[in-house]
Amino acid sequence: MQLDDELRALDAHYRSMPPVAAMDIAIAGREGDTLSLRAPLALNVNDKDCAFGGSLVSLMTLAGWGLVTLRCRALGIDADVFVADSEVRYLAPLFADLRAQARIAEGESWERFVATLRERGRARTTLVATVPLPDGAAATTCRARYVAIARKHG
Amino acid sequence: MQLDDELRALDAHYRSMPPVAAMDIAIAGREGDTLSLRAPLALNVNDKDCAFGGSLVSLMTLAGWGLVTLRCRALGIDADVFVADSEVRYLAPLFADLRAQARIAEGESWERFVATLRERGRARTTLVATVPLPDGAAATTCRARYVAIARKHG
Repeated sequence: MQLDDELRALDAHYRSMPPVAAMDIAIAGREGDTLSLRAPLALNVNDKDCAFGGSLVSLMTLAGWGLVTLRCRALGIDADVFVADSEVRYLAPLFADLRAQARIAEGESWERFVATLRERGRARTTLVATVPLPDGAAATTCRARYVAIARKHG
Repeated sequence: MQLDDELRALDAHYRSMPPVAAMDIAIAGREGDTLSLRAPLALNVNDKDCAFGGSLVSLMTLAGWGLVTLRCRALGIDADVFVADSEVRYLAPLFADLRAQARIAEGESWERFVATLRERGRARTTLVATVPLPDGAAATTCRARYVAIARKHG
């Protein structure tokens, strides 16, 4: 898949982190406000030959982190983005390559996030991410809060 | 540090998982019912030069997983141990090597876990894990539920 310049920069940003490079996490694509990441099972397998929990959490957390980062960049705001907390459910083992899709949680709004970040130089929002099984049901889900803090406010 | 045979076997089990080997996670020690794991910052660093969230979650989740696994082995029960869900709080950035300590959560009991596993061939319990900062305060905390399922019941 071809990535545009914005996604290529984010992909390079991901891979600059040694543990992310080790898991071979890459951007799979973006559709509207959904960002998808992927990683091969072979590098992310546990003792039961299915996807390792830590890799699943990494993939889901990074997908959400990427969406917030893209939003800050689109605003021209140079911000550090942190994850504050997360809830993860491991619903079914995944015996295939990993893919995570993240989007903003219901009840949250990018418009509010953007307005707050512009006004105060920091903002938080909640994102949800899912790793699907080959049949489309969820293998794991994640709900996480992210904080963006502008390095240069204004 | 010298590990006894039981911990050496668990250490080898951890390192048999490619993503765990890539993070260079190892057993740091055991004191009573607390298990400690460690990993070097250099292999687990994010874009802000501090510990990567996915590595922190992996370390904490594996520490709890190890405690449950050790308990099953001590009973002579060959069991698969799964994490069912987890809540993680990222409280402060860690700019040092990672160390996670896990123990059973307050209100939970190993005696009850063991009795249920013996009786039904499966049991669940909740563990808490913390990654400390160099000054002893918490960098991250994790509360996770684990399920053990005996492969051969009885």
